[in-house]
Amino acid sequence: MNRQQRGVTVWFTGLSGAGKTTIARAVMKELQTTDAKVEILDGDEIRQNLCKGLGFSTVDRQENIRRIGFVANLLTRNGVIVLVSAIAPHLEIRQELRQNIGDFIEVYVNAPLAICEHRDVKGLYKKVRSGLIENFTGIDSGYDVPLQPEVECQTDRETVAQSTNKVLQKLADLGHVRSVVKQLCQVG
Amino acid sequence: MNRQQRGVTVWFTGLSGAGKTTIARAVMKELQTTDAKVEILDGDEIRQNLCKGLGFSTVDRQENIRRIGFVANLLTRNGVIVLVSAIAPHLEIRQELRQNIGDFIEVYVNAPLAICEHRDVKGLYKKVRSGLIENFTGIDSGYDVPLQPEVECQTDRETVAQSTNKVLQKLADLGHVRSVVKQLCQVG
Repeated sequence: MNRQQRGVTVWFTGLSGAGKTTIARAVMKELQTTDAKVEILDGDEIRQNLCKGLGFSTVDRQENIRRIGFVANLLTRNGVIVLVSAIAPHLEIRQELRQNIGDFIEVYVNAPLAICEHRDVKGLYKKVRSGLIENFTGIDSGYDVPLQPEVECQTDRETVAQSTNKVLQKLADLGHVRSVVKQLCQVG
Repeated sequence: MNRQQRGVTVWFTGLSGAGKTTIARAVMKELQTTDAKVEILDGDEIRQNLCKGLGFSTVDRQENIRRIGFVANLLTRNGVIVLVSAIAPHLEIRQELRQNIGDFIEVYVNAPLAICEHRDVKGLYKKVRSGLIENFTGIDSGYDVPLQPEVECQTDRETVAQSTNKVLQKLADLGHVRSVVKQLCQVG
């Protein structure tokens, strides 16, 4: 067993449009060049698979996050590196996830709201501003800034590669990936 | 990677009270004495964690089974032996699971309805007979008997140990567990 990788959940939290999924996918791509076991759980995709019928009220969002956490926990304790991109706006729920899962890396994907809104990759901010969406994180629903994230990516001033390397370096530092990725980090 | 265990989903299907969870837990206990990675996904427990709000209509039951399948698939492809005890009454959905997951062992936990009803471990049959529960598999909702299950346990005429050994033997035959369990099988 000692030759096996120790699992971990890497939770990318941040506003819509901050770059969570982009960085998670870039990390995934790098890890796939190694023999690491990796899965990506994307908040939007999980809504399709595990959370049909849940809306965007506070209660439904918490249930959504708990279900992702349940699956992430199962994978993590079986040696998988689980990359989760999901806003998880409240400190309390992120602390609950950390406690339940144990091996937990919080990545704060940080970009100013104005930048996120300007990017508006999914066209959601436009819908919010025209009143089509309510309870939108950062606009009319709160986002608790992470107090002690293991990694902070400032996507308004870093390249995707730089952000990605920060995450890979943390995974290496904490012993979740082996030398191959370490080399990538040093080169990167 | 070649030293690692190949994952598989072992799906225990059968009527309520047939003994699915009992055998799954006994298999789990044996596998835990080895270095195999094992998880048990119990239909009733999953309803709490992933399926709050789903009822027992055909549509809701299928959604319940699909969610279990989604999680089982994630674990299986990461080398875990996943023991699922959930009725999954319809052939079609079990075929869908088998196709999606690939490494899939169907265990038909078979006991005559009269025996299951007599056992009535959870008191559900009593509720059905007094009209408190509807759409109950085997009573007023159909159960498609598995046509080619990898294992059949006849729990009205086998001990739990005998049923358990059948499953362990199949896992060994298909190369999902190594010698330790094989020995258990030979002794058992």
